[in-house]
Amino acid sequence: MVEQRPEAPQRTTGNAVGVDIGGTKIAAGVVDHRGEIIAQTRRETPALHPAAIADAVADAVAELETTHAFATVGVAAAGFVDAARRSVVFAPNLAWRDEPLADHLESRVGRPVVVENDANAAAWAEYRFGGGLDEHGNAVDDLVMLTLGTGLGGGIVSGGLLQRGANGAAAELGHVRAVPGGRTCGCGNSGCWEQYVSGNALVRDARDLLRSGDPVGAVLLREVGGDPEAVTGPVVTRLAQAGDPGCARLLADVGRWLGEAVASFVAVLDPEVVVIGGGVSSAGDLLLAPARVSLAENLSGRSHRKPPPLRTARRGNDAGIIGAADLARV
Amino acid sequence: MVEQRPEAPQRTTGNAVGVDIGGTKIAAGVVDHRGEIIAQTRRETPALHPAAIADAVADAVAELETTHAFATVGVAAAGFVDAARRSVVFAPNLAWRDEPLADHLESRVGRPVVVENDANAAAWAEYRFGGGLDEHGNAVDDLVMLTLGTGLGGGIVSGGLLQRGANGAAAELGHVRAVPGGRTCGCGNSGCWEQYVSGNALVRDARDLLRSGDPVGAVLLREVGGDPEAVTGPVVTRLAQAGDPGCARLLADVGRWLGEAVASFVAVLDPEVVVIGGGVSSAGDLLLAPARVSLAENLSGRSHRKPPPLRTARRGNDAGIIGAADLARV
Amino acid sequence: MVEQRPEAPQRTTGNAVGVDIGGTKIAAGVVDHRGEIIAQTRRETPALHPAAIADAVADAVAELETTHAFATVGVAAAGFVDAARRSVVFAPNLAWRDEPLADHLESRVGRPVVVENDANAAAWAEYRFGGGLDEHGNAVDDLVMLTLGTGLGGGIVSGGLLQRGANGAAAELGHVRAVPGGRTCGCGNSGCWEQYVSGNALVRDARDLLRSGDPVGAVLLREVGGDPEAVTGPVVTRLAQAGDPGCARLLADVGRWLGEAVASFVAVLDPEVVVIGGGVSSAGDLLLAPARVSLAENLSGRSHRKPPPLRTARRGNDAGIIGAADLARV
Amino acid sequence: MVEQRPEAPQRTTGNAVGVDIGGTKIAAGVVDHRGEIIAQTRRETPALHPAAIADAVADAVAELETTHAFATVGVAAAGFVDAARRSVVFAPNLAWRDEPLADHLESRVGRPVVVENDANAAAWAEYRFGGGLDEHGNAVDDLVMLTLGTGLGGGIVSGGLLQRGANGAAAELGHVRAVPGGRTCGCGNSGCWEQYVSGNALVRDARDLLRSGDPVGAVLLREVGGDPEAVTGPVVTRLAQAGDPGCARLLADVGRWLGEAVASFVAVLDPEVVVIGGGVSSAGDLLLAPARVSLAENLSGRSHRKPPPLRTARRGNDAGIIGAADLARV
Repeated sequence: MVEQRPEAPQRTTGNAVGVDIGGTKIAAGVVDHRGEIIAQTRRETPALHPAAIADAVADAVAELETTHAFATVGVAAAGFVDAARRSVVFAPNLAWRDEPLADHLESRVGRPVVVENDANAAAWAEYRFGGGLDEHGNAVDDLVMLTLGTGLGGGIVSGGLLQRGANGAAAELGHVRAVPGGRTCGCGNSGCWEQYVSGNALVRDARDLLRSGDPVGAVLLREVGGDPEAVTGPVVTRLAQAGDPGCARLLADVGRWLGEAVASFVAVLDPEVVVIGGGVSSAGDLLLAPARVSLAENLSGRSHRKPPPLRTARRGNDAGIIGAADLARV
Repeated sequence: MVEQRPEAPQRTTGNAVGVDIGGTKIAAGVVDHRGEIIAQTRRETPALHPAAIADAVADAVAELETTHAFATVGVAAAGFVDAARRSVVFAPNLAWRDEPLADHLESRVGRPVVVENDANAAAWAEYRFGGGLDEHGNAVDDLVMLTLGTGLGGGIVSGGLLQRGANGAAAELGHVRAVPGGRTCGCGNSGCWEQYVSGNALVRDARDLLRSGDPVGAVLLREVGGDPEAVTGPVVTRLAQAGDPGCARLLADVGRWLGEAVASFVAVLDPEVVVIGGGVSSAGDLLLAPARVSLAENLSGRSHRKPPPLRTARRGNDAGIIGAADLARV
Repeated sequence: MVEQRPEAPQRTTGNAVGVDIGGTKIAAGVVDHRGEIIAQTRRETPALHPAAIADAVADAVAELETTHAFATVGVAAAGFVDAARRSVVFAPNLAWRDEPLADHLESRVGRPVVVENDANAAAWAEYRFGGGLDEHGNAVDDLVMLTLGTGLGGGIVSGGLLQRGANGAAAELGHVRAVPGGRTCGCGNSGCWEQYVSGNALVRDARDLLRSGDPVGAVLLREVGGDPEAVTGPVVTRLAQAGDPGCARLLADVGRWLGEAVASFVAVLDPEVVVIGGGVSSAGDLLLAPARVSLAENLSGRSHRKPPPLRTARRGNDAGIIGAADLARV
Repeated sequence: MVEQRPEAPQRTTGNAVGVDIGGTKIAAGVVDHRGEIIAQTRRETPALHPAAIADAVADAVAELETTHAFATVGVAAAGFVDAARRSVVFAPNLAWRDEPLADHLESRVGRPVVVENDANAAAWAEYRFGGGLDEHGNAVDDLVMLTLGTGLGGGIVSGGLLQRGANGAAAELGHVRAVPGGRTCGCGNSGCWEQYVSGNALVRDARDLLRSGDPVGAVLLREVGGDPEAVTGPVVTRLAQAGDPGCARLLADVGRWLGEAVASFVAVLDPEVVVIGGGVSSAGDLLLAPARVSLAENLSGRSHRKPPPLRTARRGNDAGIIGAADLARV
C-alpha cells in the first residue's frame, strides 16, 4: 500500500493540477492548497484511440501552464490503478490494459505525475475539503464515501490514509455482493451493490415501473412522453422533489438499499462519517432519509452503538480534479 | 483510530504479557519479541461476577511476574473495545457494558494495560508472526484474517496498521450481511456471514442433514449414536478427513460460502493475503479447496486480477495472547 | 389425488361433524349443509399419549351424538395426511407417524371418517362458505388461501376441487422457499415463507426491534413491561390499530412479504381470489394494504393482467371444523 | 378454469391437427389418438405482420387436409391464453395483444379451433403420451413439467386435469421468484427461476466463465474460437458429454438450481412425477443428477416423504403439436 499522510508539510504549499478522465470528457484544473480550483479547462475524450488520451491530457496541462504555476499533476480515472500509482491496470470505459500512463505523461508535462482511481480521488477531496469536515472545518480520520453516479464508486480513508490495498484495487464497494444470485452486473458478477444503489439502478427501476402500468408511475410516464426509455435519473429526482409520490418511491427504494449497503461497510470499517456523492445524491433527503432508517435497522450491534452520520458530498463533479491534485502533492 | 506501526523500535525489545479472556477460561502468557510464549498460566473465567474477571486477570499476571520480567500487559476479549483501547464497550459473553478494564487492571498490575478485540489481536499475531509471513519470513502490508470458531471473527491489517475504526468496532466481518432476509443471527440481524461461515454453521448444517434422513449422513449419524444434537465440528472434520463423503460435503458447503465471503472482503480491502483461522480451519483443504474455487468464481474484476492466497493460521489458540502482548508493546 | 366435486348432490344434505385437532385443544362441531355450526364441544389435547387423542375425539363426537343427527365425521389436523384421507403421515405437533386415524375412529364413532390437513380444511370452508364467495354468494372456482397463524398454512382449490396432490402433501405453501439461504425454519429447510409471513415472524421481528433499542419501538416496549420476550402478535396488532407507528411498521413488513408470497403463488396457480386467514389477518388493512402494493409490484406479467383480490377469511377459527365436516360429506 | 378430463371418450377417437406457433416457424401435424404425428408440415412465422400468422396457420392446415381427415385443430403459442381457450391475451414474441385467434382461424379452417399455451400443451403431451407414463404405459394423475428451452416453461396436470387457472395464466413456473432482488428478467420482474434454470441462463453463465479467464473454461473458449458471444447451449452440452469439466460444471450449476425449483413446486403441488423437457434436458444426467441431489436437499418435509422422480421428456419438439391436438379433441 502506498500511503498519503495528511500531515506531510509540502502538500499544503503551492498549487497542483488535477485531471479527471471521464468516458466523454477530460476535465483539468489548477487546485490550490485549500482545495479550490483556480483555473480549469476541458478536452473531449478521444474515443477510438486510447493512446490519444495522453496527448489530450498533456495538451490540457500545457494550456493551464500558460497562466499558472504548479509542481505536480494528479490524474484520476475510472478503473484499477496499480499500487505504485503509475499505471492503469484496467479501465472499463477506456479500453486501457496495463497502460503506463504516468510514464507517458511525465515526459510531456515535465513534472511528476501520479495516477489515482477516480472514486478514491473523490473520496480524498471530500475527506480533505468537503463532506468529511465537521462544522468547525476539522477532518475526521475515518471516512467512507459512496458515489452514486451511473455506477456506484467507493473510497475509504482510514486513520487519515487513503486505502488503496495491496494492488491498488481496494474500495471497489460497488462490486461487493449484496444479493447472492442477484442482478447481473457489467463486472461479470451478479448481485453487486451497484445494481441496487446507483443512477442506473434508479433508471432501471423507473422503467420497470412504467412498463408495469402501475398508476403510481403516471406522472413520470407523462413527463417522458410515454416512452420508458426516455427516463433519466434527473427527471425522476426533479419530479420527486415536486411531490410526485411515484418518483419519491423510486428514490426511497434506492435509499433503502443504500442504507443496507452502508450498514455492511460500517461493520467492516467503522467510519466516523459516510459521505454520499454522485448525481443521485442531489435528491437529498428523498434518498438519505430512507437510507438512514434502513441503516439504523440493519446496523450490526445496533443496541450498543450509533450509526455514523450520512452526509452529502460538497465538491460535486469537481471532486475528482481536487482529489487527484491534492494526492499528487506528496 | 489508534495506530500500531510495525517498525516502532521499542516494540521489538523485551517481553510483554498477553491475556486472552474467553467465555470459560482466561489464558495469560509472557511473549517475547519474536512472538513466542515463554511462560503461560490459566484461570477459569468467573461467570457470575463480571467484576471478578479483573481480579482473575490480575492474579494470573502476578503469577507470571514471579518468574519473568515484562513491561506492559495486553488484554484481548470478545466484543467492542473503545478506540482508546481502554474499555470494553460491549461483550456478548461477559455481560460487560462500558467496562473500564484498563483502569481497573493498571492499578493492580502496576504496568500500562491496553485492551484489544480478540479477533483483532489474533489477526495481529498472524500478521506479525504467523500466516501473514511469506516463505522468507517477511510480513505483507495488507492482510485480512477470518477466524472460524463457534462464530466468525475478523481482523484487518492495512498498510501495516491494525484497523480499529473510529470507535474500535471495525472488522466485524462475521456480521456483514451475506444474504438479505437470511438466517437469524444472535447479533439481532439476519443473514450475517457468521451464519454461513463458522463452526456453528457447520454443526447446524450437519444436524439438518441428519434430521433429513439423507443416506449421505449415515456415517455421521452412526458416529454420534443416532443423536443429531451430539454432532460437533471436530467430529465432522475427523470423519471428513477419514474419507466420509457426507462430512466432506458439509465442509465443502461452508468452504464455498467462505470463498464468497472472502471475495466480498477482497473487493473492499484488496489484501495481499487472507489468513483463515479458528477450529474449523483445521480441516485444511477440505475447507480451503472449495473456498478457493468459489473465491475465483466470485471475485470482482476477476478477468484482470488474481485472487489473494488463502493461508491457514499458524498460531492457533495462542494468537490472542501473542497479538495482545505485541500490540501492548508500543 | 382424491377429489371433492362441489356439485356432488349428497354433500348438500344433512349434517356432518367436523373435528379440529390442535396442539392444545380438540374442537368438534355439528355443521349443517349451509356451513353453520349448530352445536359444539371441546376437549383438551392429550399431550403425552398421542394414542389418547383418538379417545378424546371419539368422546367429543359421542357428546354431539346425544343431541344431533349426522352421517359422517371429518377430522382436520396439522400435518401430512395420506391421499386416501385416512392416515396422518406426519404431524409436527402431535408426534404421530403414519397414524391410521380413520381406522381407529370409525370403529368408535360408528360412521365413516375422513381425515384432512387442517389448512386444506380451512381453505375448503372459505371456498364454500366464506371469503371465496362473491357479493352474490357465488363461489369462485379457483382460490388460494394463506393462513397466518403461528406458522403459515396453505390451501388450494382449482376448478372447484381441493388440491391434495399425489400423496396428500400439496399446498404446503408456508414451506416453499422465499429466500435462498434464508431464515432457518423448523421444517429443516431455510428461507421458507413461514419465516417471513406468519405470527411467529411478526413476533420475532418485534422482539428484534425492541432489542435494537430503536425508539420507534418505545410504545411496544412499554406495553410489554420492558421485556421483549413478552411480545405477542395480538399486542402488536392492537397497538398498531391504536396508531403506534412502530407496530404498524412491523405489520407492514409482514404485509410486504405476504404480497410477494402471493405474487409467486399467483404465477403458479392463477387463482380468482386469495383469502388471507389466521390470527395475523385480524390486523386487516394494516397487513393487507402493504400486501396489495407489493403484490402489484411483484406480479409476473403485470403489464397485461390484474392481481387477484386479497380478501380476509370469514370463518375464523371455525374454518377447520366447517371444512372438515363439509369435506366428509362426499 | 377449463378442464380436460382424460376419460372423455370422444377424445380417443379420430385424428386432430396440432399447430405449434414459434418465434421463427410454425409447425403443424396430424396427430392420431395414440399421440403419434402421422403427417407434418411447416411454415415460416411472418415476423412483421402478426395478423399474417393466422393466414400461415390456415395454409398449413389446408395442406394437411388434402391428405388426412381430422375433426378439430389445436393451436399452441407462447403467452397468456384466455380461459375460454380462444384468444391470445399476450404473446412475448409475436406482438399479439388480445388476439382472437380461434375466431380468426375457425372461419378459414372450417373446424373448431382451441388455443393453448405452448408449455401447457407440451405438459399435456408428456402426461398423455410421454414422460408421464410409467413402465406399464399408465398415466399418473399429478404431473409437473418444466421445459428448459431458451426460457423456462411450466405445465401442471392435477388429478388428470390440465391446470389453466382462473384466467388461463396458471403454471408460469419460470416466472415464480427464486431470488429476492435477483437477476433481471425480461418479464419485468427480477429473480425469476427462468434466469437460473434455462438455456439462456446456461449460455449466460458460460459467457461469464469465459470472460473471467478461469482456466476451467479453456476447452470451451477454444471451441468457440475465443469469442464468448459464440457460445450456445448445444456446444456446452456436447463438450460436457465429451468429458470437459468446465462445461460439466456449467450444466451442474443449472441442475442444482433446477432441483431447488422442483423442490418449491413439489411443496405447492405434490406431483407424482416431474418431467424435464426442452433443449437443455438433452444433457441428461449431467443436468439431472445434480438436480436430484439438490431436490433431495431442499425438499420440505424430507424426513418423512420421498422426492418425486425427475424424468426426461419423451416427445421432444413435437410435444407442442401433440398436446395441442389432443387438447382440441374434447
